Amino acid sequence: MLDSDFLSKVQRSFRVVQDEQVAALMEFDAEASLTRDHWERADGGGGDTRILKEGRVIEKGGLNFSAVEGAVTPALAQQLDTSATRFAATGVSSVLHPGNPHVPIIHMNVRYFTLDDGTWWFGGGIDLTPHFVVPAEAKAFHSDLKAICDRHAVADYSAFKPWADRYFSIPHREESRGVGGIFFDHMGREGQVNREEALAFCLDLSGHYAAIYKERAAPFVQSFVHADDMHWQGLRRGRYVEFNLVHDRGTRFGLVSGGRTESILMSMPPRGHWEYDHEPPEGSPQAETLGWLKKGVEGVDWLGQ
Amino acid sequence: MLDSDFLSKVQRSFRVVQDEQVAALMEFDAEASLTRDHWERADGGGGDTRILKEGRVIEKGGLNFSAVEGAVTPALAQQLDTSATRFAATGVSSVLHPGNPHVPIIHMNVRYFTLDDGTWWFGGGIDLTPHFVVPAEAKAFHSDLKAICDRHAVADYSAFKPWADRYFSIPHREESRGVGGIFFDHMGREGQVNREEALAFCLDLSGHYAAIYKERAAPFVQSFVHADDMHWQGLRRGRYVEFNLVHDRGTRFGLVSGGRTESILMSMPPRGHWEYDHEPPEGSPQAETLGWLKKGVEGVDWLGQ
Repeated sequence: MLDSDFLSKVQRSFRVVQDEQVAALMEFDAEASLTRDHWERADGGGGDTRILKEGRVIEKGGLNFSAVEGAVTPALAQQLDTSATRFAATGVSSVLHPGNPHVPIIHMNVRYFTLDDGTWWFGGGIDLTPHFVVPAEAKAFHSDLKAICDRHAVADYSAFKPWADRYFSIPHREESRGVGGIFFDHMGREGQVNREEALAFCLDLSGHYAAIYKERAAPFVQSFVHADDMHWQGLRRGRYVEFNLVHDRGTRFGLVSGGRTESILMSMPPRGHWEYDHEPPEGSPQAETLGWLKKGVEGVDWLGQ
Repeated sequence: MLDSDFLSKVQRSFRVVQDEQVAALMEFDAEASLTRDHWERADGGGGDTRILKEGRVIEKGGLNFSAVEGAVTPALAQQLDTSATRFAATGVSSVLHPGNPHVPIIHMNVRYFTLDDGTWWFGGGIDLTPHFVVPAEAKAFHSDLKAICDRHAVADYSAFKPWADRYFSIPHREESRGVGGIFFDHMGREGQVNREEALAFCLDLSGHYAAIYKERAAPFVQSFVHADDMHWQGLRRGRYVEFNLVHDRGTRFGLVSGGRTESILMSMPPRGHWEYDHEPPEGSPQAETLGWLKKGVEGVDWLGQ
């Protein structure tokens, strides 16, 4: 039996999170067009995908809520390492691709999973992918995330930060996707976590997503854009595509297990660009950014910068 | 012991194939810039990557020759289903992305693999990915491939054609990548094939690559291009990226096993475009193309069209 009372509570809370995120982002970027797509899943449940397009800040962004349930397929059983037979999952995820290359890309996800053997867990995180790394911005971003973690006994910035560094790395490029952030999974699966506290952390984190983004985006919204900057943005977006399609476990699992393709690939940039063996000129801001991204999967201690 | 005499012969032949392909394509598209990149592999061997850029026809194209050898890693042993300890591989591969959306994308690959247990095999194929499907063009393309297969006892168009249909499908989109072509693998691995005959087929096939492309490209090089056509080209290129990064076994194996990233991702289009839930207007040429691509992994009998 799935514990449907707590599940319903999480679903309701996540719906509110999505509504508030959309409202805050539309206030920030009033010229963006907003579309809403309710969808159903043949095997049970469905979702609500909101797409922001062609705003003053956001060229293409998505915020997806889903609440699905069904039988644990063999693929899912292997992925989850479980012998349970029914699952329910609910989550909110978002990726925002700005038009101005000096504004960073951001990604957020919170999710709740429960099985009919009584186990449950939360997972999620927020990470930032600037096209041009600005250390002071990365530091401020990490500082915000640490402050949120520090408010919750269930959250540990010092563990979640390196988790994000390991997760958001692109091994075939020997690069980090961006300046990281926090990532966590299986929170509560081992049983020592209070689920209300875990939910409170997820709501605090996701509830600050739009505000965190505004702080990092606002100073750069009107930054001067050189043609070289657009070219570089295209290449970095290409890397974003490579990470998501080659390495991201959520994307890959979704695509091969029959998830809803459009909602999964909502994370794709509007455009990606590929060039053979591109190397930015020595000493350029592009080369400086690559220098930061190539510091290894251990990541950079941004708070110490 | 690897049989180095035959291996050397295949390597030399494949080098010539690449040289001739490059020469023929540069004659066809004299305004393209051509760069050459010799590279070495730390574990043994190397390659020669030629990049064509910004031509009158080809916006971005690559032709890669490689000849590598080394220890059979655990990942490779699993991929190849072998207990041999040393391998050698050589091949030529190419992808051409045209600027004009009415000109199709083409892909070609021939490769030879041998192990120190005495086994060897050839693999390869050619397939066509039009942004706009024109049945008469697909028919002519398949007719050329069938004629080549029919000249060789080792080749069987009626087996290789559906093999390409199965291989070049995008399950998460329920679409074919393009109009298919031929695909074959493990030719000779079971021992009933004469290796000289297999090589002769691979050389005949790859030797006609440039000519086959010219026939399909030439009539459309000056086709009128509407802004909508460019937009659609970007979306189809996005699908090409999705296929290569999510499904293509060669690309994925190369990227996760430490292959040379730039040479593997030479297949990426110059630009890819993603839009949430894009649907072409009913009755448009774009919708008609989707109709052809959505006929299922069984593919279309183009010769019967």
